[in-house]
Amino acid sequence: MQVPASTPGSGTFPGLITREHEPLNLELPFPTLTDWLIPANQFYVRSHFAIPQLAADEWRLHIGGAVRQALTFSYDELRQLPARTVAATLECAGNGRSRLVPKAKGLLWEQGGVGNAEWTGVPLARLLEQAGVAAEAVEVIFEGADKGSINDEPKSPGVIAFARSLPLAKALANEVLVVYAMNGQPLTPEHGFPVRLVVPGWYGMASVKWLQNIIVSPTPFDGYWQTLEYAYWHRVHGQPTLAPVAEMQVKAEIARPAQYEVLPAGAPYRVFGAAWGGASEIAQVEVSTDGGHTWQPARLLGEAVPFAWRFWEFAWATPSVAGRYQLSARATDAAGRVQPAEHNPDFRTYMVTKIAVIEVVVA
Amino acid sequence: MQVPASTPGSGTFPGLITREHEPLNLELPFPTLTDWLIPANQFYVRSHFAIPQLAADEWRLHIGGAVRQALTFSYDELRQLPARTVAATLECAGNGRSRLVPKAKGLLWEQGGVGNAEWTGVPLARLLEQAGVAAEAVEVIFEGADKGSINDEPKSPGVIAFARSLPLAKALANEVLVVYAMNGQPLTPEHGFPVRLVVPGWYGMASVKWLQNIIVSPTPFDGYWQTLEYAYWHRVHGQPTLAPVAEMQVKAEIARPAQYEVLPAGAPYRVFGAAWGGASEIAQVEVSTDGGHTWQPARLLGEAVPFAWRFWEFAWATPSVAGRYQLSARATDAAGRVQPAEHNPDFRTYMVTKIAVIEVVVA
Repeated sequence: MQVPASTPGSGTFPGLITREHEPLNLELPFPTLTDWLIPANQFYVRSHFAIPQLAADEWRLHIGGAVRQALTFSYDELRQLPARTVAATLECAGNGRSRLVPKAKGLLWEQGGVGNAEWTGVPLARLLEQAGVAAEAVEVIFEGADKGSINDEPKSPGVIAFARSLPLAKALANEVLVVYAMNGQPLTPEHGFPVRLVVPGWYGMASVKWLQNIIVSPTPFDGYWQTLEYAYWHRVHGQPTLAPVAEMQVKAEIARPAQYEVLPAGAPYRVFGAAWGGASEIAQVEVSTDGGHTWQPARLLGEAVPFAWRFWEFAWATPSVAGRYQLSARATDAAGRVQPAEHNPDFRTYMVTKIAVIEVVVA
Repeated sequence: MQVPASTPGSGTFPGLITREHEPLNLELPFPTLTDWLIPANQFYVRSHFAIPQLAADEWRLHIGGAVRQALTFSYDELRQLPARTVAATLECAGNGRSRLVPKAKGLLWEQGGVGNAEWTGVPLARLLEQAGVAAEAVEVIFEGADKGSINDEPKSPGVIAFARSLPLAKALANEVLVVYAMNGQPLTPEHGFPVRLVVPGWYGMASVKWLQNIIVSPTPFDGYWQTLEYAYWHRVHGQPTLAPVAEMQVKAEIARPAQYEVLPAGAPYRVFGAAWGGASEIAQVEVSTDGGHTWQPARLLGEAVPFAWRFWEFAWATPSVAGRYQLSARATDAAGRVQPAEHNPDFRTYMVTKIAVIEVVVA
């Protein structure tokens, strides 16, 4: 049996904020952000059930449903196939929820339910091609080994595994990987060891961890995790219709200064943060230091990498007058989508990208 | 302005059980069942919001969406079109919910959230044909004038109208009517005046009352009333997927004796009830007088009428030994579907057809 790189438990995630202990939900303290790639033990953790303790030599990946030939892969077989490495930012669909007024139900993530890493694995399209997707297929369902009972009876379907689907077109996109390594190391248990899906450009719930079953479906899948959870209202002729949370919305976050940080008056200060927005490139980040009245362009750092966040900075000359000041950042992507000032109530408690306010004390 | 045939309020529904006063939800006391057609003021009432008070001369029906030509009809225009009359049993999807253990949430209907009536109106297919359904259409959405806010924030979409959809094939079936008369009289306000949809064979929630808008849709509609409410879990490769409650399940109910009725010992007694099951004809009703150990055939009364309930009777010689006895009835339809002994938990609190027990006292 192969031993995973780390085991979850006290002390293995230095500095992460515990949002929930069982199941394990941990958040990056966003003001500590420095590295473009977040190490596994600093990467946010989102679990819905207890973390499965899987043995790599016993684990199997099954591909079935509407395919010409059902397939099974072992961990070793999977790792011998041609691999790709893709940098991708994953964000929890509920990240930023603590900003909603009134207080939302669910885990109250602040800024740090997000991270960026390099993911190595086999393109899903290659596996599906080998299995032979039937002409009538419309979606692909991904099932993890994590399972349990939901507490909102009577609407829950009882004991269920975590599962999500992708439309066939996204499942066949070349960035979607069946992943066994994160930042060049085997996955850790809390990040999906031995194998997970990674769906660049989509919120994290699509990147099913502890992946065991891939089912090609000839009908749309309306599973628990894309209807009663992780779904939002989309309007059709004014009528709300439920849609699965999918592509990430455009968003900039300020890492520094931190909320209520004390800054010296009349001095230069480097405002720093990250911006991301799914498949579309970040075109611009703007910063306001006067509570949103005026905006100035920030400088984008490094190069644009598809599906990965972009760091940015803004040189601020702090006021000479002591007092409280409000900083905000807002992003615009290459498709012209601008980060909104207000939360769309149809998004429920997901996709929270409304422009945040960081209040600092200039003294 | 035309005056509707009755207005809701105390005294207009003699003998009905009030399940909820605002919005108005009334149930037929099932042991009083005698007539195959239930009069409007004895017919169960299911409302989700306050009953709209609509004026027939101001009301309009709009047909739009994926059609060649959007159309609008007045009440008079609609009544001048060729009409059909169809007898159909409507049942609330939550009827029988009071039998669930543990106690279910929602209105606790006993036996009488069901009724049978003759409905007169214009076949929906004729109106859709006139509008010209686009080739890409897959569903038809029906929107009522009843609207309001839902109390289960944050999952609700805010203030919404009651709305449901039908797959295009069912929308074009010749039994589906845009109805303006019930048992030969104009609709009453609580039954949808001036105009409602009637979808024979489906649970009542599909028969949208106070119909105002018909929207032909090129994409599946996942509205509130067919996802967060009136939906159940359907299994695909073992994975639960949410499906709208639709076709009625097969069911027999005993009207007489009533629960805890006292019967004379060693005497003939006529067990009487009704059975229904959506589109499929009732093939057989059986009665047990020994708590479900043995079953004997009941006699079906009258003729089979598509989409309408069938009355039945069973001649019971009550025991000579005084005591408590348990009576049950179970139906089988022409498609071979047998009423189940247990509730399917995937049906949540809908489609409750598990065989009921009527306990009587023989004295």
